[in-house]
Amino acid sequence: MLGLTLKLPVWQAPMAGVSTPELTAAASNAGVLGSIGAGYLSGEKTEEFIRRVKQLTTADFAVNLFVPEEAEASAQQVQAARQLLAPYHKELKAEEEGGSLSFGSSAFHEQLAVVLQERVRVCSFTFGLPPQRALEQLKERGIITVGTATTVEEAVACEQAGVDAVVAQGCEAGGHRGSFQPPESMIGLMALLPQVVQEVSIPVIAAGGIMNGQGIAAALCLGASAAQLGTAFLVTEESGAHPLHKEAILAADEKEAVLTKAFSGKTARGISNHFIQDMQGHEEVFLPYPLQNTLTQSMRKQAGKQNNKEYMSLWSGQGTRLSKKQTADELVASLLEETDAALLAANRSVQNMKGTSR
Amino acid sequence: MLGLTLKLPVWQAPMAGVSTPELTAAASNAGVLGSIGAGYLSGEKTEEFIRRVKQLTTADFAVNLFVPEEAEASAQQVQAARQLLAPYHKELKAEEEGGSLSFGSSAFHEQLAVVLQERVRVCSFTFGLPPQRALEQLKERGIITVGTATTVEEAVACEQAGVDAVVAQGCEAGGHRGSFQPPESMIGLMALLPQVVQEVSIPVIAAGGIMNGQGIAAALCLGASAAQLGTAFLVTEESGAHPLHKEAILAADEKEAVLTKAFSGKTARGISNHFIQDMQGHEEVFLPYPLQNTLTQSMRKQAGKQNNKEYMSLWSGQGTRLSKKQTADELVASLLEETDAALLAANRSVQNMKGTSR
Repeated sequence: MLGLTLKLPVWQAPMAGVSTPELTAAASNAGVLGSIGAGYLSGEKTEEFIRRVKQLTTADFAVNLFVPEEAEASAQQVQAARQLLAPYHKELKAEEEGGSLSFGSSAFHEQLAVVLQERVRVCSFTFGLPPQRALEQLKERGIITVGTATTVEEAVACEQAGVDAVVAQGCEAGGHRGSFQPPESMIGLMALLPQVVQEVSIPVIAAGGIMNGQGIAAALCLGASAAQLGTAFLVTEESGAHPLHKEAILAADEKEAVLTKAFSGKTARGISNHFIQDMQGHEEVFLPYPLQNTLTQSMRKQAGKQNNKEYMSLWSGQGTRLSKKQTADELVASLLEETDAALLAANRSVQNMKGTSR
Repeated sequence: MLGLTLKLPVWQAPMAGVSTPELTAAASNAGVLGSIGAGYLSGEKTEEFIRRVKQLTTADFAVNLFVPEEAEASAQQVQAARQLLAPYHKELKAEEEGGSLSFGSSAFHEQLAVVLQERVRVCSFTFGLPPQRALEQLKERGIITVGTATTVEEAVACEQAGVDAVVAQGCEAGGHRGSFQPPESMIGLMALLPQVVQEVSIPVIAAGGIMNGQGIAAALCLGASAAQLGTAFLVTEESGAHPLHKEAILAADEKEAVLTKAFSGKTARGISNHFIQDMQGHEEVFLPYPLQNTLTQSMRKQAGKQNNKEYMSLWSGQGTRLSKKQTADELVASLLEETDAALLAANRSVQNMKGTSR
């Protein structure tokens, strides 16, 4: 699909913040598409990251960029949001984010310039449609472009914008929702995926709750060209997620992966902790994304340093009970075996029925 | 599975209120397991229903019962809930439900007696665990018992109670959520199903958003023993759903199938309409299930008579765009073809990759 040569139609989900060159390279070397979650990186850091991955693998990989969003908040709103966070800053001895919370699109354009310069094989986008000029530049260099959609309409908008493929993100997915057309909807992948496949003609990559070969096989049956796995890779050795983040997922049941806007102002799924629970009922005080994200940055950073998982963002999809402590290589080896086995078993059960039915 | 002889591992979902003997029999005659949604029927009506199905088919079918729930509301709460509905009663010239809103468990015990007497092949339960004595009686007569779960814990509780199989209901599902252990969780089927399969040893039936053979194949890959389809059967000719209900689903996009407690006091998914929209923000006035259900009964009934879909409960899962106007027989014929084709295509894409990968 898309001219990529993989052993299995699987993409390691880009996970801004926990992405490491080692994870991307391990995934690509194992025969799936490794990804870099460049979302929160400067242009310079993005370049360093890509070059490090290239030292570790000669295989294809992808870079994911966040389409910049405008957000505004009045001085009073910022003050209220700061006040809500003040007790946590005090407890963790975290410094308040000083000065302006404004967020420009300069990082995006720097990242894009690096992707073009480095001729990365695949460039995917989250949180909206990339500027038309960006798509043109990527296409001129033969870079495969990918959008992200949480509804059929968003997928159609991605196709119309001209991307080569689209990720259909079900409500099971961990981390931020890729929604960009209000109202935000929570469509389960089992319903979303076949409807997206029906309504667009570009390849569809299935994301949300897929943790093993059974899930990959299911996604392929529903018409996906590939399956994208985040949480399963997040808990591997090569991932840069905080050890307590990995442990929290490995120990969680599926109900603990809840939705919250408390960390960033944008809906995201992660393991429930004190901060998420405390912030319930305060939704109207949160600043819009990305302002709230900037505001909680030092709290999250300090919590990580202090090994306090109650104030970290423990992003996770709903497939927690299927998570396994292993290397990325071991994960991919299992995926290869399980996918074949799942398709074989499903086919056998259908054929057996035909044999025994009246 | 479970000794049932079917052409395809598919169960027609029991749909209380829209269930007809013709639909149950058509499904069973076509080679899948037809079901009766007996939820709101008296013992006598349940008996009539079962006998009519037996006239129409010699194949196996299932009866679904609602495990009775206790609910209390003060006179003031009832008064407030009535007031909220008063404008709709007036507009539709619907009579207020008079007298007591209390709901006993006598209907359940009558239904159960009929299922035992008629030796229906399968008896499934929704909204909780059936009384131990009921399970014993059913088992004594060789009747297959089935529970309904929306989380892994609920599925484990079903297994421990002694049922023979469990339906795993993903958040995509239409109609009422089968949840019975708070807090209510919304787990997508792609994540829920493989986790339930991992944690219980009884057969698991997948429900939620499955509309076609691709979905059935996906469910089987995820370890389900069968797939249960509701919405796909609801829009068939033989279903007793109001014509406007069917049309609403056939015309809806996936985002329009929303969650509401307005009709019954219990979370259910249906096509958004004026009543659902009007009731947003009034959740705390709704009576607990089943009292709210009784309270809105005449409104729904009158709306149906007056062909006014804005005040009917238009239950639907999230797979709306895959719904097709056809007979149950045509639906099952498609399912048979599509399931094989989906497994074949998925297998081919995996094998092709192996051929072309480095």
